[in-house]
Amino acid sequence: MTQPERPFDLLNKALQHNVLIRLKGGASIRGKLTAFDIHMNLVIQDAEELDDGTVKAKVGTMLLRGGNILYISPA
Amino acid sequence: MTQPERPFDLLNKALQHNVLIRLKGGASIRGKLTAFDIHMNLVIQDAEELDDGTVKAKVGTMLLRGGNILYISPA
Amino acid sequence: MTQPERPFDLLNKALQHNVLIRLKGGASIRGKLTAFDIHMNLVIQDAEELDDGTVKAKVGTMLLRGGNILYISPA
Amino acid sequence: MTQPERPFDLLNKALQHNVLIRLKGGASIRGKLTAFDIHMNLVIQDAEELDDGTVKAKVGTMLLRGGNILYISPA
Amino acid sequence: MTQPERPFDLLNKALQHNVLIRLKGGASIRGKLTAFDIHMNLVIQDAEELDDGTVKAKVGTMLLRGGNILYISPA
Amino acid sequence: MTQPERPFDLLNKALQHNVLIRLKGGASIRGKLTAFDIHMNLVIQDAEELDDGTVKAKVGTMLLRGGNILYISPA
Amino acid sequence: MTQPERPFDLLNKALQHNVLIRLKGGASIRGKLTAFDIHMNLVIQDAEELDDGTVKAKVGTMLLRGGNILYISPA
Repeated sequence: MTQPERPFDLLNKALQHNVLIRLKGGASIRGKLTAFDIHMNLVIQDAEELDDGTVKAKVGTMLLRGGNILYISPA
Repeated sequence: MTQPERPFDLLNKALQHNVLIRLKGGASIRGKLTAFDIHMNLVIQDAEELDDGTVKAKVGTMLLRGGNILYISPA
Repeated sequence: MTQPERPFDLLNKALQHNVLIRLKGGASIRGKLTAFDIHMNLVIQDAEELDDGTVKAKVGTMLLRGGNILYISPA
Repeated sequence: MTQPERPFDLLNKALQHNVLIRLKGGASIRGKLTAFDIHMNLVIQDAEELDDGTVKAKVGTMLLRGGNILYISPA
Repeated sequence: MTQPERPFDLLNKALQHNVLIRLKGGASIRGKLTAFDIHMNLVIQDAEELDDGTVKAKVGTMLLRGGNILYISPA
Repeated sequence: MTQPERPFDLLNKALQHNVLIRLKGGASIRGKLTAFDIHMNLVIQDAEELDDGTVKAKVGTMLLRGGNILYISPA
Repeated sequence: MTQPERPFDLLNKALQHNVLIRLKGGASIRGKLTAFDIHMNLVIQDAEELDDGTVKAKVGTMLLRGGNILYISPA
């Protein structure tokens, strides 16, 4: 049995690794996940904002509010 | 009596099977359901984003926030 | 006194019968109600998506999130 | 003192009478109020959907989710 | 010290008096406030719907859901 | 240490002084803050509605719902 | 182990330093973070509103409601 049993197990396994975060409005954030909480608020290091796959801005470290997230995918 | 008695029974039965998820904005996600919680946050493996029935992106594994979902249908 | 005393009594009486569900965005779902919970999450069997009264897609069984619903009407 | 002291007293007095419900999007529902709960979920019998004052559809009985309501007015 | 100490004191003082209610969408409601609760659900008597300052409809008595309100002002 | 330690300390210090309130939709309210609660519902006296910096309407006293606010700034 | 373990640790470390706040609508706020609470309500001093990277307005001190925030990034 290798599948996670609860959705937040995926975040635990993704800690210190790169993730792609798709936002509700269509834009994306890419970077290293270093912290999260039960609201899915995330800390992302070396974060890049993407629009249609191209880098729009390099942000450094950010605290991203969970309510804006559509999905999170380990890179 | 073969019908589920509570909506989440449908998710339990769909675990490890393919599902189609229709999102509020009109797009869809297709893939294998491997985890869910009471907020309907889902883990989807081999996930594909669909727009009008055509595959737009292959995402691998994703944690999808329940608040974005219109409906979930076992494939 | 034949009227239901609480709104959810209507859902209890509609179990195993066809219902029409009008969504917030204007589209509709039609099918057999087989389960519901206090959030008005519904399981619909033989579900059809309707747009302006014409069938747009046949979905089979779906778990529909209550937050998207405008109203539910027994067929 | 004939005024209701709490807003829900108005719904109690309106039970079994016709009401006009104005929705957030601008459309309206007209019919007989037969049940309500603390979320302002309503059961309406002989319900009609109105758009700019003209009847768009006759729906029969409906369970209307309170979150969509702008106001309720006894007819 | 004549100012109210809590926002709801303003509603208490406005009971049985005319108020102007500005809604989120830009429209307004004018009439006599006769009841309110902690969600700012209001009962308004002799209510008028206004658009850009002109009366669009006379509604009689209404139960207005608090979630739609931008502000309430004693007339 | 002269900075407030919690955000609501700023409201306490602003009581009986003029504030500028920026709303989510882009409009603003200017006036004297005389009361607030934990939802950031505010009572504003001598309130003016502003659009792009010009006064659109003088409202007198208003109870402004906190959910509509983007930020509050002491004048 | 230098990474924060919980997202709010990032806010604690950013206190008294400059931050860039990206809002849901696309605009940004830049200034010194001097207070925050569990809702991510923030007090920002020497705050500037930015649109596409150019300063649109200097606001002084503001209490910014957390619900409007997309992300917060230490400058």
